[in-house]
Amino acid sequence: MRTVCSETLDMAVPFAHLLYSEKPPILASLGSPPAVERPAAPAQDDLKRIAAHRAVELLESGMVVGLGTGSTAAHALDRIGELLRRGVLRDIVGIPTSKKTEAHAAAVGIPLSDLHAHPIVDISIDGADEVDPSLNLVKGRGGSLLREKMIEGASRRFVVIVDESKMVPCLGGSGLAVPVEVIPFCWGHTLGRLRSLFDGEPGFDAKLRRAASTGDGGKGEPFVTDNRNYIVDLFFDNGIHGDLDLISDKILRITGVVEHGMFLGMASSVIIAGKDGVTVLDKQ
Amino acid sequence: MRTVCSETLDMAVPFAHLLYSEKPPILASLGSPPAVERPAAPAQDDLKRIAAHRAVELLESGMVVGLGTGSTAAHALDRIGELLRRGVLRDIVGIPTSKKTEAHAAAVGIPLSDLHAHPIVDISIDGADEVDPSLNLVKGRGGSLLREKMIEGASRRFVVIVDESKMVPCLGGSGLAVPVEVIPFCWGHTLGRLRSLFDGEPGFDAKLRRAASTGDGGKGEPFVTDNRNYIVDLFFDNGIHGDLDLISDKILRITGVVEHGMFLGMASSVIIAGKDGVTVLDKQ
Repeated sequence: MRTVCSETLDMAVPFAHLLYSEKPPILASLGSPPAVERPAAPAQDDLKRIAAHRAVELLESGMVVGLGTGSTAAHALDRIGELLRRGVLRDIVGIPTSKKTEAHAAAVGIPLSDLHAHPIVDISIDGADEVDPSLNLVKGRGGSLLREKMIEGASRRFVVIVDESKMVPCLGGSGLAVPVEVIPFCWGHTLGRLRSLFDGEPGFDAKLRRAASTGDGGKGEPFVTDNRNYIVDLFFDNGIHGDLDLISDKILRITGVVEHGMFLGMASSVIIAGKDGVTVLDKQ
Repeated sequence: MRTVCSETLDMAVPFAHLLYSEKPPILASLGSPPAVERPAAPAQDDLKRIAAHRAVELLESGMVVGLGTGSTAAHALDRIGELLRRGVLRDIVGIPTSKKTEAHAAAVGIPLSDLHAHPIVDISIDGADEVDPSLNLVKGRGGSLLREKMIEGASRRFVVIVDESKMVPCLGGSGLAVPVEVIPFCWGHTLGRLRSLFDGEPGFDAKLRRAASTGDGGKGEPFVTDNRNYIVDLFFDNGIHGDLDLISDKILRITGVVEHGMFLGMASSVIIAGKDGVTVLDKQ
């Protein structure tokens, strides 16, 4: 799969045909608004919930389900737990993509296992930080990219759930981080090699991710992943330009890099909830 | 760099021109043997020491030196320590490639630092488990492949020291392990993907490395690297056939793989000590 992101791509173009494809369910349930008034647009968290619930409709009893990590995937966990409690779904086995998801899934009553016991996953549901027109993703701003990639890569079907703000013309195009998980040993050296890879890209920067201040003295300490590694965040002013597969290989060849947050050609479908409706994009 | 290992390569051919290039120093120092007798061939450990001492001759005072790991590199550590004590070398800064080497180097009096303080290494000296005719290496049977690759990759010159038993026509050709460092999470899944990569290779096998019995209950437990990862050992009955750079990329693309033990195009020189002399091969 070769994806080349054009510098001249107009962000509005690639998704223009996808909008207005369906009424948002949350609005439909409110009934028709008076002709002279418009209903309030759903908030971002409502959109995340809409996309998550739509994805959970794809589940069938007896399935092995990869459980994503993050604020959108959390809505899917809640919904699966609810459907299990109501008996609408039975015999679901969840494979969590992070320790956080493991705790959340257990709390809502989803039986859990791992890839060792269930090497083939029927379906995975997870959010994404960015989705490009070819359904390539950036994931891992929450720091769980490696386990997510492992489990979602082992899935027959990988359904991505996002609100419309995550759609970009080009990976890295939101100006937020493209994360890279690195071994802590000599992380500064690895960061330097990552910087060299994108030397000359205007506005490019690479930074070690630091843990947020937690009031327990953790401020300024490196953020530590579930695998006890660090994260280097890559920032691109205008997105990543070039052959993404080649860029992926160049990143992975750097000794000290464990994995990166570009998920290329992995998504089977993307469910996008927008204020004007829900759109489902399937892999070509 | 593209290296293709021919299945029909005769192991004796590629190094035939290299043998007998020089008298082994340890024998030269014994004086000429009687005409009717041959001196006892040096033992393997003597050959390792010969190669190591030859490499240390390349050091100059003030250099930053990458310090390898393993039984051959250990002779280099001892020699550097001795030359520092005798004042033949001064102001050497060593960058150790493992915790074991760090302890050994400190014990023999080599001042130590790291890549953060010294991002450019003047010279690294290390052993190898296998060397092919293009000076590609297999390293890491001792489990330190990641730190070795990071430090030796940051070196202006990387000198490999081996006894002649390490020369192979083809990487993997000794029938011993080609190690791959993997994240402990779902290691069985990663091992399965490594197996799939070489499906159909006759005699191929992949196994999780286990810690040797230490009498402290560690028997059977996974071997743990300095980076707290596991090692999957790949075994090839007849060596690795195909484009090594491509095979390297395929291994690195597997989520859960951190690094592998093939060092392709990295060695500047290989010093080979054999029972008939010392040979130095330089990168073309």
